[in-house]
Amino acid sequence: MALIVHKYGGTSMGSTERIKNVAKRVAKWARAGHQMVVVPSAMSGETNRLLGLAKELSPSKPADATNRELDMLASTGEQASSALLAIALQAEGMEAVSYAGWQVSVRTDSSYTKARIESIDDARVRADLEAGRVVVITGFQGVDDEGNITTLGRGGSDTSAVAIAAAMKAHECLIYTDVDGVYTTDPRVEPDARRLTTVSFEEMLEMASLGSKVLQIRSVEFAGKYKVPLRVLSSFTPWDIDINEEAKSGTLITFEEDENMEQAVVSGIAFNRDEAKISVLGVPDKPGIAYHILGAVADANIEVDVIIQNLSKDGKTDFSFTVHRNEFAKAVDLLKDKVLPTLGAAEVVGDARICKVSIVGIGMRSHVGVAAKMFRVLSEEGINIQMISTSEIKTSVVIDEKYMELAVRALHKAFDLDQPAA
Amino acid sequence: MALIVHKYGGTSMGSTERIKNVAKRVAKWARAGHQMVVVPSAMSGETNRLLGLAKELSPSKPADATNRELDMLASTGEQASSALLAIALQAEGMEAVSYAGWQVSVRTDSSYTKARIESIDDARVRADLEAGRVVVITGFQGVDDEGNITTLGRGGSDTSAVAIAAAMKAHECLIYTDVDGVYTTDPRVEPDARRLTTVSFEEMLEMASLGSKVLQIRSVEFAGKYKVPLRVLSSFTPWDIDINEEAKSGTLITFEEDENMEQAVVSGIAFNRDEAKISVLGVPDKPGIAYHILGAVADANIEVDVIIQNLSKDGKTDFSFTVHRNEFAKAVDLLKDKVLPTLGAAEVVGDARICKVSIVGIGMRSHVGVAAKMFRVLSEEGINIQMISTSEIKTSVVIDEKYMELAVRALHKAFDLDQPAA
Repeated sequence: MALIVHKYGGTSMGSTERIKNVAKRVAKWARAGHQMVVVPSAMSGETNRLLGLAKELSPSKPADATNRELDMLASTGEQASSALLAIALQAEGMEAVSYAGWQVSVRTDSSYTKARIESIDDARVRADLEAGRVVVITGFQGVDDEGNITTLGRGGSDTSAVAIAAAMKAHECLIYTDVDGVYTTDPRVEPDARRLTTVSFEEMLEMASLGSKVLQIRSVEFAGKYKVPLRVLSSFTPWDIDINEEAKSGTLITFEEDENMEQAVVSGIAFNRDEAKISVLGVPDKPGIAYHILGAVADANIEVDVIIQNLSKDGKTDFSFTVHRNEFAKAVDLLKDKVLPTLGAAEVVGDARICKVSIVGIGMRSHVGVAAKMFRVLSEEGINIQMISTSEIKTSVVIDEKYMELAVRALHKAFDLDQPAA
Repeated sequence: MALIVHKYGGTSMGSTERIKNVAKRVAKWARAGHQMVVVPSAMSGETNRLLGLAKELSPSKPADATNRELDMLASTGEQASSALLAIALQAEGMEAVSYAGWQVSVRTDSSYTKARIESIDDARVRADLEAGRVVVITGFQGVDDEGNITTLGRGGSDTSAVAIAAAMKAHECLIYTDVDGVYTTDPRVEPDARRLTTVSFEEMLEMASLGSKVLQIRSVEFAGKYKVPLRVLSSFTPWDIDINEEAKSGTLITFEEDENMEQAVVSGIAFNRDEAKISVLGVPDKPGIAYHILGAVADANIEVDVIIQNLSKDGKTDFSFTVHRNEFAKAVDLLKDKVLPTLGAAEVVGDARICKVSIVGIGMRSHVGVAAKMFRVLSEEGINIQMISTSEIKTSVVIDEKYMELAVRALHKAFDLDQPAA
């Protein structure tokens, strides 16, 4: 008997028929003797429907007061689906109870629409589990210290599930989704992409942060921080498949490197077309410039990804970085209005038609020349590299978005990712 | 400057266009200098949609655990509409904030799906009003002592609004709805029905309890208990009509009888086809029988309306009462399974095809022969009376439901309700 957390995405919860299947699957696990905590997303389409209504009422950019209300609004989607799942479990003959984030409680900071979980008080949940109940907890949402409802941002239900699994020291957190695992790259771009049976936490973290949509990055960070064994698997297998077979399916995110295992140099190709590039040109090259620019951006709660500062020339330099496309206009306005006047820089220019393509692999630690090979492959395809960013286990390039598919396919082939693992 | 509570029904909140109109109307009142608290219902159709999903998952009669989940589910409708209204108010340039029942907090007992408000802590709301904000509070819902979400039952948003108005000692509570006031009877049954400009609290209480759907009865009880001036008016007037004209429109529920005013003998005809009749036949006529039968019904949280005990014959009597049709089957099962065996009664029989028709009027206190006139009118129409119940200001009869419209029209005419008030 183990404590298991299941997380079901919006597609898996997309209709009452599918909710019934989720209930049957969860009941199967509970009847096998496990203590079950389930974290469902809102029914697919529901969050968009709600936020669409809000947009009709307030077409302009939301102020912070409006973000508070957007969280009040959007959080109802998960509350409804959690209650529905509890009802379906009861109809299956299980004892079940659902909780909203504030009832558990899942404490977050007050950054509406993208809050961060600070703590989880699991006493109530543990009492229910001891009493033999299946506990359903709303994903995506929490409550701040003043009792305001917050949401964790898109994909936040993954983070909720992992955070709950961490707080409860769950044996494993199973993320049920509409794909059957983590692939070497997106099969919609590269049909020869292969499913990985395991992937290291670090690789997964890079892939998530680089735009692979399978798991939300903060959920992977949480899993890493608290060593929560995490498995991505399909919710579209029949609910009554053998539980032992199901428990080994999908992709397991591992925390210990298997010394005996031959690591592939590159495990996957990630890409992301949600970013935009901003350059501040003609910046006086003196100490404090990076902070002056990025501090203002951070104060506006805009996340920055790749950052590059060019070589100085005549005491001036160019400073470039990428942000999410949704925040592109806000960031450019901010820099023009607030930063340029005090910085003495010449100009702010931006480009939203870029993408980031990355190769990721634990094996890159012990192999040289991997980045160079990436650059050669892209060069052979005639693709110009605009920005480069590296870490121990990945190399990312920013290129024109029109070359994205071409770059992904060429790299997938060059690094033998279409071949079965050793 | 006064503290005003507005309540908007589901139809008034039925689309983003209508929500915008609500926001404009509320903003008009706020700009006229009033402190505004607004209690919206869920968007029309939303509660039914949510409960319909639940029914697909669990077609059988809900257990108490399921009722808890139904409240988790249904309460999301009001939370969403409250957030949408706050967003619309912000788009109108108002400062606004929305609260769910647990945030205010609206404390209730734990009778899921029909909880009763026990207390309201208005400190947070008052601070917002002092800071110049419009406060939107979800109707229909509250929170029990264990932090579970509860709902007040259908129409509960009226009760929420009045309870909040009472707790905040509001100057007036305006119930905006899709009718423009309280009528002598339902105009869909009697086209000659007239709107009442005022109605006494006691008459309104009888009309609400007797099936007039304009106001939920508990809201009228609350208004009476705390002397909350209550006005029913239309949300379909243009939002920008003159505020002084609007403030005098609809029907005002008054608490002081105007001595100088000629009271109509009968103010209105109420009717209700949501009831069912249950008879326990052949009951031994001895002390404690009524308690034995009705105590069991009350313990199952089933409300009883009309009660009649017939004359005893051969030491046996018949005992009849009415319950809501939704609880008819539950009550009959209960009596057959639990009460008959210990009571020594012969039989339980029921009839769901009945209706209750009532005449209501403060003037009945000082006029004799009003009930007799009612019975004569029904007799002349050939309508058989099955049960009779009276109070100081009303007389109700239970009749076959097929005669309902006929009875209402005949009584409306006989008591001159189609004539302009004196």
